[in-house]
Amino acid sequence: MEYRFLGKDITYDTLKAMTPKEREVLCSELRDKILKTVSQNGGHLASNLGAVELTVALLSVFDYKQDKIVFDVGHQSYPYKLLTGRYDRFDTLRKKDGISGFPRITESPYDAFDTGHSSTSISAAMGIARARDLEGKKNYVVAVIGDGALTGGLAYEAINDLGHSKTRMLIILNDNEMSIDKNVGGLSKYLSKLRISSGYLSAKQTTESFLRKLGFFGRGLIKIILAIKDFFRFLLYRKKPSMFEDLGLVYYGPVDGHNTDDLIKAFDAVKDIRGPVLIHVLTKKGKGYGPAETNPSDYHGVGPFDLETGVVTGKNSYTTVFANTITELAVKNPKIVAISAAMTLGTGLDNFQMKFPARFFDCGIAEEHSVTMAGGLAISGFIPVVAIYSSFLQRAYDEMITDCCFMNSHVVFAIDRAGFVGNDGHTHHGLLDISYLNSMVNMTVFSPRDYTDLKICLKYAVENVEGPAAVRYPRGTSPFEADGPLYENADDCVLPHVVKDYGSDFAIVSTGRISVEADRAVEILREQGINGKHINVSLIKPVPAKEIWDLIVGVKNVFSLEEGIISGGFGEALEREMQILGFESDVTVFGVRNPVVRAMSQEEQIKFCGLDGDTVAASIKAALS
Amino acid sequence: MEYRFLGKDITYDTLKAMTPKEREVLCSELRDKILKTVSQNGGHLASNLGAVELTVALLSVFDYKQDKIVFDVGHQSYPYKLLTGRYDRFDTLRKKDGISGFPRITESPYDAFDTGHSSTSISAAMGIARARDLEGKKNYVVAVIGDGALTGGLAYEAINDLGHSKTRMLIILNDNEMSIDKNVGGLSKYLSKLRISSGYLSAKQTTESFLRKLGFFGRGLIKIILAIKDFFRFLLYRKKPSMFEDLGLVYYGPVDGHNTDDLIKAFDAVKDIRGPVLIHVLTKKGKGYGPAETNPSDYHGVGPFDLETGVVTGKNSYTTVFANTITELAVKNPKIVAISAAMTLGTGLDNFQMKFPARFFDCGIAEEHSVTMAGGLAISGFIPVVAIYSSFLQRAYDEMITDCCFMNSHVVFAIDRAGFVGNDGHTHHGLLDISYLNSMVNMTVFSPRDYTDLKICLKYAVENVEGPAAVRYPRGTSPFEADGPLYENADDCVLPHVVKDYGSDFAIVSTGRISVEADRAVEILREQGINGKHINVSLIKPVPAKEIWDLIVGVKNVFSLEEGIISGGFGEALEREMQILGFESDVTVFGVRNPVVRAMSQEEQIKFCGLDGDTVAASIKAALS
Repeated sequence: MEYRFLGKDITYDTLKAMTPKEREVLCSELRDKILKTVSQNGGHLASNLGAVELTVALLSVFDYKQDKIVFDVGHQSYPYKLLTGRYDRFDTLRKKDGISGFPRITESPYDAFDTGHSSTSISAAMGIARARDLEGKKNYVVAVIGDGALTGGLAYEAINDLGHSKTRMLIILNDNEMSIDKNVGGLSKYLSKLRISSGYLSAKQTTESFLRKLGFFGRGLIKIILAIKDFFRFLLYRKKPSMFEDLGLVYYGPVDGHNTDDLIKAFDAVKDIRGPVLIHVLTKKGKGYGPAETNPSDYHGVGPFDLETGVVTGKNSYTTVFANTITELAVKNPKIVAISAAMTLGTGLDNFQMKFPARFFDCGIAEEHSVTMAGGLAISGFIPVVAIYSSFLQRAYDEMITDCCFMNSHVVFAIDRAGFVGNDGHTHHGLLDISYLNSMVNMTVFSPRDYTDLKICLKYAVENVEGPAAVRYPRGTSPFEADGPLYENADDCVLPHVVKDYGSDFAIVSTGRISVEADRAVEILREQGINGKHINVSLIKPVPAKEIWDLIVGVKNVFSLEEGIISGGFGEALEREMQILGFESDVTVFGVRNPVVRAMSQEEQIKFCGLDGDTVAASIKAALS
Repeated sequence: MEYRFLGKDITYDTLKAMTPKEREVLCSELRDKILKTVSQNGGHLASNLGAVELTVALLSVFDYKQDKIVFDVGHQSYPYKLLTGRYDRFDTLRKKDGISGFPRITESPYDAFDTGHSSTSISAAMGIARARDLEGKKNYVVAVIGDGALTGGLAYEAINDLGHSKTRMLIILNDNEMSIDKNVGGLSKYLSKLRISSGYLSAKQTTESFLRKLGFFGRGLIKIILAIKDFFRFLLYRKKPSMFEDLGLVYYGPVDGHNTDDLIKAFDAVKDIRGPVLIHVLTKKGKGYGPAETNPSDYHGVGPFDLETGVVTGKNSYTTVFANTITELAVKNPKIVAISAAMTLGTGLDNFQMKFPARFFDCGIAEEHSVTMAGGLAISGFIPVVAIYSSFLQRAYDEMITDCCFMNSHVVFAIDRAGFVGNDGHTHHGLLDISYLNSMVNMTVFSPRDYTDLKICLKYAVENVEGPAAVRYPRGTSPFEADGPLYENADDCVLPHVVKDYGSDFAIVSTGRISVEADRAVEILREQGINGKHINVSLIKPVPAKEIWDLIVGVKNVFSLEEGIISGGFGEALEREMQILGFESDVTVFGVRNPVVRAMSQEEQIKFCGLDGDTVAASIKAALS
């Protein structure tokens, strides 16, 4: 496809001057570019395809060089990136040193705020708008938020404050009836009602057709009406008081989110209202690409795929092993229930949900509620398994402590995406969980290495642990050539195990998937005549320090290796507990010092932080000499 | 006052059989007991006085031995405690080994869930109700939540899920137009509207008086109407669709929260509705005690006070020093803005608010929004100072990382109540902040020891630090006899300083208020012929390891002392950084291993954890021999 607009300098003035036909061309160019790039690089497809017209309309009314637009999560920021100076580099999307899949202030002066986690946009935009007001500036501030993200408590806290403070800003509710999976919750049902009961388009059409009947005079009147846009059109089209109005916002909508003309009129109509306005825009996830329209969840975040057929190949992963195991355990134990925070597919719990619909709860993008609700189930004798990505579980840090750990409740946290996540970049890494879990009283923590180990540890956490337990496992597939535990008896998953033993020059104690790099390091050093051992542990809290010591008696040079932040992590806990036991040597900790590791492959990220076998071997060698 | 009911065995049946007059007597007995106890022991007064009738009515309709009642926060649980078997021990309220000021499952089988942090009750009750449904049981589940707690995002997440899932449970919205301070937010305004526009009481009165006019037949009809309570009365009294109905709940109210008769009728009317119901109850904080009715904020959480005059004596504290300093700094620098999460008085920011109303933002009980909004202000060039208690800031763990630290934004966190908090008990300790702050990239952390040190560190954090910075300081007053910094030049607040130097037998490195215990330990050991040094640091991240080493060259036995959890804390960071520099000796860390330290005085809590001067001295002595 030859592009007529994309690739040329596109400014606010260019966009403002476009005809509807030209905008249509631009939109199809954006779709083409996004489809080509994502089918090559992977990325967030469906939400970006759904936001094409919305973005073109936004940038036709608001000047991105003056005004501030905050995209919630950032799943939908590709069209914006393409229109704000990043077309040339767009082929590098989500690659090392390339364009991020999310807004990044370091990437462009036109990205107003870094996003990645859900439901932050209204709060961030409010801060930006309040700053503008304090400085007496006049620019516009816009938050673009999906209906899914609106189920997050943070968004509600912001609306509550906004409705009271009356800060002038615009919220665009991009309502596609989805978050990543089908949206849930009372709000979702309410939005459906607004959609269905709305007389917006018909009222508009009726009014216009009525006026048209008035002939020349009437047509003149239409012009006048369209001119007094800030007030009259607003009165004409806005809905009756809604929940948002109850909370103090002006509600306007719904508007067809794939009609740039309607969108531009709506934005124009409300942009100068003093105070907060919410425009309800209806879009379709995956718009313009058949397979993604039909199965938007499958095309939320995708790896590279075949553009013709849309086929994405799935394979075994830590996630599927978790999903199968928990379903198997639930067959035998009716007390097991599972909880997802709007990530039923991503966490693999769709299978569990099909099998045990009454024992499955999707709480929406609501990590806090998911965890506290789990606390309520646990105190009543059930075994809730809460499956949330490591990075998103950070949202429920407090609830894990006060609503589960303090009461020593048996809630099992299945922490997916622990460690480096690859192309989503630093906002999505699960590098903090070991540290925060280590500080939580009563919490038992497992960090299994391969599929079988995950299966066994999960079973142990569910069946044998009494208080809160966490099982953390990485994104993607196992790096181990041969899968299988280091122990015969399943209960021995709580013990350390010798993986390799070539001598006592050094010992490295590893945990989790990155154990594979410790193996490599030990082999590399062996070739250089330095003979050490590799000990692996799956149970990391309480760390089996005594048992580890037993395996490394007489070894002076001890190292630890983990895929997580050093501060408060596995290595430091090991060092502390060994010291308390009286172990003389220090433990030298290999882990992540700075978690701001940008998008690249997981392997590249591990290498970037010096945690790959080669670098670890070199570091050990340097330490020994 | 002689009690007619309190002190005797009070069961569901006793309560159910009471006449309105008897309930009135019981209510005044409860008020009397609460006032006497809180004026002696300190505690949460105003909210408990406001919940007396509500609790009596609740326990007249719901059987506390079968049904589950979850009190949000728990500020309002004293009447419940008195009526569920804890009258005899009530004099021990908030004392060592006494009755907790909050619901505690370990204290009574009738406390359904531990609370302390805001906005958890609906989620916890949902978990309990879902468990009940899975087990096919029929008991009732009730969440009692204040209008303030309803501004927390967690509560909204729960309502969203509840309105969708239609779980049968009851929410009692205890609306006193307050959280701790006057409630803020769009929701608060909306509730006011519901209160004012309501025709509830008059409609009821009109209907009844109309029916009465019908004579004998009419009175019979009233009886029948009152009998078909589950349906008809419900239809009669409930309001038109509200925001809560939009979200899928049945809304009923408002009801006079100080009329047990009305309350009982309301609870009876709705309790068997299948699905979630919200009853809007209007109460007055401090009800029945003049000074508390007039100034409920002053009587939210109080120390002992004079029952006659109501005088509470205030004195200098870390909080007032923070408040005065930030106001002084703001006079000179117009970029400084301050943010509170519904704790304007508690954090001392009322003065700042009066002086700079446009530069002060109370975001409601919304720690997450407060922090992300601060991120928006910082990215726009302002210096937001977010003042939140350590324990409550846990709620914003994720937002601190993703919305402030990742962008290296200059947000200053003023973390009050860091360390032990005394009588509020373990849900309120600020023992985790050093650990979680240590794991946050770009974050600078100060833990000053006394008032002057706090003042200087805060100024440094605001004026000299470039990225995110935290200043943590304890609840209450300084334990130091002489206030004054250990350094002359204010910029030296980032360096370690020698407090005492008697010799090189050992060195103890301390941070924060608890430094006073290190002083004591050094003195105690000196008397025993063991001569060591005491080094104090206020800047703990990045820990000035090199400079500390310079002060303890040649010392083999190094200890650290902090008022926080050991895992990921100051001592471990010191150990790690010294090790990286090549320091040979280990650092033995004194800190908190288990943060579940129940209510007692701060001094007792420090001693309980072995962090007082005597115990530290004994531990050092043992380690040296």
